[in-house]
Amino acid sequence: MKRLFEPRSIAVFGASANAAKIGYRIVENLQIGGYEGTIIPINPKGGEVLGLPMVSSLDGADVDIDVAVVAIPARFVFDAVVECGRKGVKHVVIISSGFSEIGNLDEENRIVDEARKYGMRILGPNVFGVYSDVASMNATFGPSGILPGHVAIVTQSGALGIAMIGKTAAESLGLSAVVSVGNKSDVDEADLLEYLGRDDRTRVILLYIEGVKNGDRLEQTLRWVTRRKHVVVIKSGRSKRGAMAAASHTGSLAGADEVFDAVMKQCGALRAESVQDAFHWVQYLATAPTPDGKDAVIVTNGGGIGVMATDACEKHDVALFDDQKCLHDAFAPVMPDFGSSKNPVDLTGQASADDYQKALDAALVEPRMHSVIALYCETALFDTEQFGELLRETYARYQEKKPIVFTLFGGAKIEALVRELRAEGIPVFANVYEAVSCLGVLYRSWRVHRAPALDPSAPALPTAPIREILAEAGREGRGFLLADEAAAVAKSLGMTMPRSTVAGNLRDAVEAAETIGYPVVLKVVSKDIIHKSDAGGVALDLESKDEVIDAYQAILRSCRAYKRDAKIEGVEVAEMVRSGVEIIIGARQDPSFGPTVMAGLGGIYVEVMKDVAFRAAPVDRAMALQMLAELRSFPLLLGVRGEARKDMDAVADVIVTLSHLVDQCRELTDIEINPLVAYDLGDGAMAVDVRILFQNTEEVR
Amino acid sequence: MKRLFEPRSIAVFGASANAAKIGYRIVENLQIGGYEGTIIPINPKGGEVLGLPMVSSLDGADVDIDVAVVAIPARFVFDAVVECGRKGVKHVVIISSGFSEIGNLDEENRIVDEARKYGMRILGPNVFGVYSDVASMNATFGPSGILPGHVAIVTQSGALGIAMIGKTAAESLGLSAVVSVGNKSDVDEADLLEYLGRDDRTRVILLYIEGVKNGDRLEQTLRWVTRRKHVVVIKSGRSKRGAMAAASHTGSLAGADEVFDAVMKQCGALRAESVQDAFHWVQYLATAPTPDGKDAVIVTNGGGIGVMATDACEKHDVALFDDQKCLHDAFAPVMPDFGSSKNPVDLTGQASADDYQKALDAALVEPRMHSVIALYCETALFDTEQFGELLRETYARYQEKKPIVFTLFGGAKIEALVRELRAEGIPVFANVYEAVSCLGVLYRSWRVHRAPALDPSAPALPTAPIREILAEAGREGRGFLLADEAAAVAKSLGMTMPRSTVAGNLRDAVEAAETIGYPVVLKVVSKDIIHKSDAGGVALDLESKDEVIDAYQAILRSCRAYKRDAKIEGVEVAEMVRSGVEIIIGARQDPSFGPTVMAGLGGIYVEVMKDVAFRAAPVDRAMALQMLAELRSFPLLLGVRGEARKDMDAVADVIVTLSHLVDQCRELTDIEINPLVAYDLGDGAMAVDVRILFQNTEEVR
Repeated sequence: MKRLFEPRSIAVFGASANAAKIGYRIVENLQIGGYEGTIIPINPKGGEVLGLPMVSSLDGADVDIDVAVVAIPARFVFDAVVECGRKGVKHVVIISSGFSEIGNLDEENRIVDEARKYGMRILGPNVFGVYSDVASMNATFGPSGILPGHVAIVTQSGALGIAMIGKTAAESLGLSAVVSVGNKSDVDEADLLEYLGRDDRTRVILLYIEGVKNGDRLEQTLRWVTRRKHVVVIKSGRSKRGAMAAASHTGSLAGADEVFDAVMKQCGALRAESVQDAFHWVQYLATAPTPDGKDAVIVTNGGGIGVMATDACEKHDVALFDDQKCLHDAFAPVMPDFGSSKNPVDLTGQASADDYQKALDAALVEPRMHSVIALYCETALFDTEQFGELLRETYARYQEKKPIVFTLFGGAKIEALVRELRAEGIPVFANVYEAVSCLGVLYRSWRVHRAPALDPSAPALPTAPIREILAEAGREGRGFLLADEAAAVAKSLGMTMPRSTVAGNLRDAVEAAETIGYPVVLKVVSKDIIHKSDAGGVALDLESKDEVIDAYQAILRSCRAYKRDAKIEGVEVAEMVRSGVEIIIGARQDPSFGPTVMAGLGGIYVEVMKDVAFRAAPVDRAMALQMLAELRSFPLLLGVRGEARKDMDAVADVIVTLSHLVDQCRELTDIEINPLVAYDLGDGAMAVDVRILFQNTEEVR
Repeated sequence: MKRLFEPRSIAVFGASANAAKIGYRIVENLQIGGYEGTIIPINPKGGEVLGLPMVSSLDGADVDIDVAVVAIPARFVFDAVVECGRKGVKHVVIISSGFSEIGNLDEENRIVDEARKYGMRILGPNVFGVYSDVASMNATFGPSGILPGHVAIVTQSGALGIAMIGKTAAESLGLSAVVSVGNKSDVDEADLLEYLGRDDRTRVILLYIEGVKNGDRLEQTLRWVTRRKHVVVIKSGRSKRGAMAAASHTGSLAGADEVFDAVMKQCGALRAESVQDAFHWVQYLATAPTPDGKDAVIVTNGGGIGVMATDACEKHDVALFDDQKCLHDAFAPVMPDFGSSKNPVDLTGQASADDYQKALDAALVEPRMHSVIALYCETALFDTEQFGELLRETYARYQEKKPIVFTLFGGAKIEALVRELRAEGIPVFANVYEAVSCLGVLYRSWRVHRAPALDPSAPALPTAPIREILAEAGREGRGFLLADEAAAVAKSLGMTMPRSTVAGNLRDAVEAAETIGYPVVLKVVSKDIIHKSDAGGVALDLESKDEVIDAYQAILRSCRAYKRDAKIEGVEVAEMVRSGVEIIIGARQDPSFGPTVMAGLGGIYVEVMKDVAFRAAPVDRAMALQMLAELRSFPLLLGVRGEARKDMDAVADVIVTLSHLVDQCRELTDIEINPLVAYDLGDGAMAVDVRILFQNTEEVR
């Protein structure tokens, strides 16, 4: 991807002397932006654009071309791509629209296939171009005058992307790169992240996504990129109706928002709801220093706003410094009467600018206070202009040492000051929740950077025998496993299942029961009897040999009465499952993200309370335990009402195993263990029922 | 309260010629504000302030005084209040601080007691004053130049309140009244709402609350005020730590935030998280017309932002118009190529200003589209200035007919346009979530205005016999009822409890079982045996006479063995409770709001999942059913997995009854029915266990 961002030469198909044309605009933007490589405008009619001679085709150009920007009607694009291929172009940026976004997928695929032959990459179609600070290259038809900086934007929406570029300039936000990905026929977010994740100028990456293709690659790339950069993601289509609207707008599959959300969290990407929030975040993340620790202190001259900041800290997961002695030592010497040196440190409305300065300094120099939330309510005691100077000067002194956010609350003068300071790049807000949310995402990203990496070791799974079972079932025309086949898979993976035998006669049944140990369950085995209970074909909780004998005979009697001609193959004798906490574990191929795992507490909790955790697979044990911990019903595993803690490691092992299985065997489309019964710590867990669906490649479709 | 807002004359204690003094500032603000009544500045030293002669005491004034503003040191306030009382002043506004907020509660109470003798009302202490548009009265030491308008602000925080006034002017928000309530020693929000709820100039009331006193009066007042006005509430201290900070800052009890939140919803007040949100809301609510129906339509020139608006509509509960034929008929004639006439109506980035105008008009004239969300992404095709005119002109034509919100997204010019239009009072936003949240609260308030009023009829409850039971227990020194007493209360209220009898001998036990009907439960009755199960004193699920006989004898045997000298009073024979959905119903005196009720599903759901609904009591049946419907576990009552719908009316009746009981008998501090077992529709519900705590007035404390 390096040459896409750092091309030595750029050809522009559709360049034009007509200032109303996109091709003109691109050449103009390249020149205004100060691009120093070679620009080759191409127009079959020849002529000149902005002092550059236009050539009729690439064949006439006598330099190597790294990037070709194509802004010509859709029907001519294929030929231009062929021309690029012949010339050895590395990247083709197709601005033109009229492809898959209006249903014309075939032509888009034809172009990509052709490009592949030459080893060329396609960005687009249906994009507004690329901007790259390192090459001073504005190869877009969007606004000129992009400020250089440390934020890279990758956007799927063209309209919103162009508006975003405009907004960055208006909000003094400097950019290292902007890429419009449009239809993502070839190059997608993951490709771009590969480059941006290693680009020294880029500190923060902002992704605007409408639909995910190849989500597993995106997820794997994000995993390492988020450890080096801050990554903020906006994805519209959060709601059901929004997802429908997104699908109709982009033609891309929006996917289940809960899965997207869970996977982004898992990867360490910071998801913003609105563009506004995202802008505040990236702006802050681009400049804030790395905190030395988690503890924030609030300094305020108003009690009410201090309380609101405290609320916001809880909402945005910012820890408040709590060492009362240290707080007292730091602030008591500078505290006016009635002030409080607890956190929030409340100087009260009687504080002067001087008091404020002293308290702020005290917070900023104390190494155990790792970040500072400074709040100000307009009072008559402060001169606004002088206060602005105080903030500027304080920020300049500490901006590289400690994360700070400011909130100023007041009238027209204060609002003007907020705008002024923001334009200077100082993190000043009018809304305390906005300010704290920025500090909150800095901390989230900080925790991502420090978190232990995913354990990369993959367990050796018996995939060969499992695939044999699948193949066997496939030959029978099935895309699912029978209960005994699924049980065999589960056992081969080391899971504990209820012991069971099928007995052909009473003697065998009794022997089986004695071997398994009481209590046992008896169930008729007959393909002719679907509803076993209705037929009287089930007996539970048999505690002795006598009870087994009675039950066996009763089952045969009832079943024969129920269906005279039923062929009875035998009676299954199975271990009676002890009760414990019932859990559901699922693993499946998600349409967006490929292999994923899901965990939730059994029955009602998943079904009614929607209390589930998702992850992209594979996961390691630490992450599997984290999944359990984020369930609202987690206390049931910890043990409520005096019950013992459950064997969470055993549950986590099942999650880990299934996650690797669906990762290694992509033909497994859906596995569900329901219930997995978790017993007390040390007693393990039992997989009572296992259901497996797979992609039957032998099936005639 | 009328004279507080419309005084014919105002005395200012602490008036001063010194411009640095609060007393000077108040006289100055009264004059600048154009107050036309009589102003009497009071200063023991005499002299003159801003052209008015100062008198040494009220006794010297020769007019009747409606309001006295007191801005003198705390130690002189009592005498000033006495002076006011003698003179027949109606309202005393105590600006001075140094009372309960610093622990000096006694002096504050002494002042209020004294004022009561004269029938005077006290606002404060520790306030910044009162502003009232109808009287052109700015009796505050805050900013001058308050814009007249339709929003009333009542604030507990002085600092934040003053900053808010500044902000209103900066944001062109006109005010009908501002009151600082400070320590709320006498006048509180409910008193002020009594006036503001009937004030024609006031369309929207903004309450900033830190702690609630007399919450039940507040709740009762809000119930009717919210049917006439829009009421927006900010309450800080949402989080646990925030609540602690609020308590230490105001000295007031913050109370459980879930209860506050639930009661505000119940009353129809619109709770905002941040001051920013609240400002957006009140500004919109002050000008928006009443919608003719629930259906909104989104008009956009950008697909991405349209999807985000759709997400925002789901978040903020705005219904989207969905009649495809009507959408097509309205928009197809004005739709550019590639555009979509589904909702969101997407004109695409190729739309011109003219296309945009036509689509907007189409939405605004169609009577079945009740409100419009207009979105714009900056494109090269629009001239910003011309677009501004388009919005101004369109808004002017429809602002009184249909609710509209605009969102503009783009660069510096667009941001400037947003500010400009907002300053003109046009609801234009840079953030689509903000825009939609405003429409969302308009709809919430609209639904409140249209909701049927609470059924005012109170059931006739047997409070006299219940009080006798309490008195009897009280005489025994108890603050709780024994199981049989609580059961008696529940039965007297018409609740179904398991039938039971205490049998003194085997024959009686068998007879009781036969009367009750099998299965039954047997339980030993003995004050000496606390843990009945451990002693073998319980037998469940007895299905016949023989089983009862066996169990009776076994219980006596075990209990004697367990504790040789235990005095056994008998054996309780009780109906075996059939299983159903277990529910918890609670009713208690909340420290902030007085009588409240709570409902949740049994056991784990309340304990672990925190799935509960609260209301201020009393509630009617409709509201009780609403409580059940808002539980996440509600589907269990509707019947999942083929189970029948449960008898929700029976459950609701219990909620209604308990809510009236704790309202009528305030000495009942805590009632809990756990579980109340709900059976299938028509089969009622059974109160299995009832626990009652009360305030024992006979108890020696």
